[in-house]
Amino acid sequence: MQPRIKLWLERDGRIVMSDYRLRLLRLVADTGSLADAAERLDLSYRRAWGKVKELERNLGIPLLRSAPGGPGGGHSEITPEGRDLLDRYAAFQRRAEAAVHTAYDDVFASPAPRRTEA
Amino acid sequence: MQPRIKLWLERDGRIVMSDYRLRLLRLVADTGSLADAAERLDLSYRRAWGKVKELERNLGIPLLRSAPGGPGGGHSEITPEGRDLLDRYAAFQRRAEAAVHTAYDDVFASPAPRRTEA
Repeated sequence: MQPRIKLWLERDGRIVMSDYRLRLLRLVADTGSLADAAERLDLSYRRAWGKVKELERNLGIPLLRSAPGGPGGGHSEITPEGRDLLDRYAAFQRRAEAAVHTAYDDVFASPAPRRTEA
Repeated sequence: MQPRIKLWLERDGRIVMSDYRLRLLRLVADTGSLADAAERLDLSYRRAWGKVKELERNLGIPLLRSAPGGPGGGHSEITPEGRDLLDRYAAFQRRAEAAVHTAYDDVFASPAPRRTEA
């Protein structure tokens, strides 16, 4: 048996970050392109763009900054505020997952308690 | 902002317990009736029964035991093995949720670090 966990952050009941959204934004940071990031996650560009805009709206901060396209086309990069959020979320995710595994081990490693029938 | 978490347990890639399934089984324990528990969760009896059977199959242990119906109809109760699993899962859930909140506070309470531009 193993524990599984899904994490996300909300603000006023709206999602402002999740494991999946972190992956999308990290791919933008790595590739410099929202189009490339979308393709790697098998998302349409429109849908990926919509997800980023929704997060920006819910957070009230810009996450991506677009540089004008040169010969190779446009370029997207993470804003400093976005980078701070991604770094923190990644740290939160790591600690939370480790803590959940510890909680699981603590609770499930010990043998079943003897039960006294009433 | 607040952290949200969804937990479950898997065995060989199959779900053997989750927050939702714990709720269903606790309602059976409280009401003594799978039909009543299903109704409270707005599930059909058939679907609730299917969920319990699926868990039992995936776990390899019986979770519910049915007593023959007297004048008031049948009665379901949690087996001792099922009770042990529910108690442990509830403890795991409590610890895991507390740990995730602690991880969140640790990571997000501090102010944003100063960034040195490269």
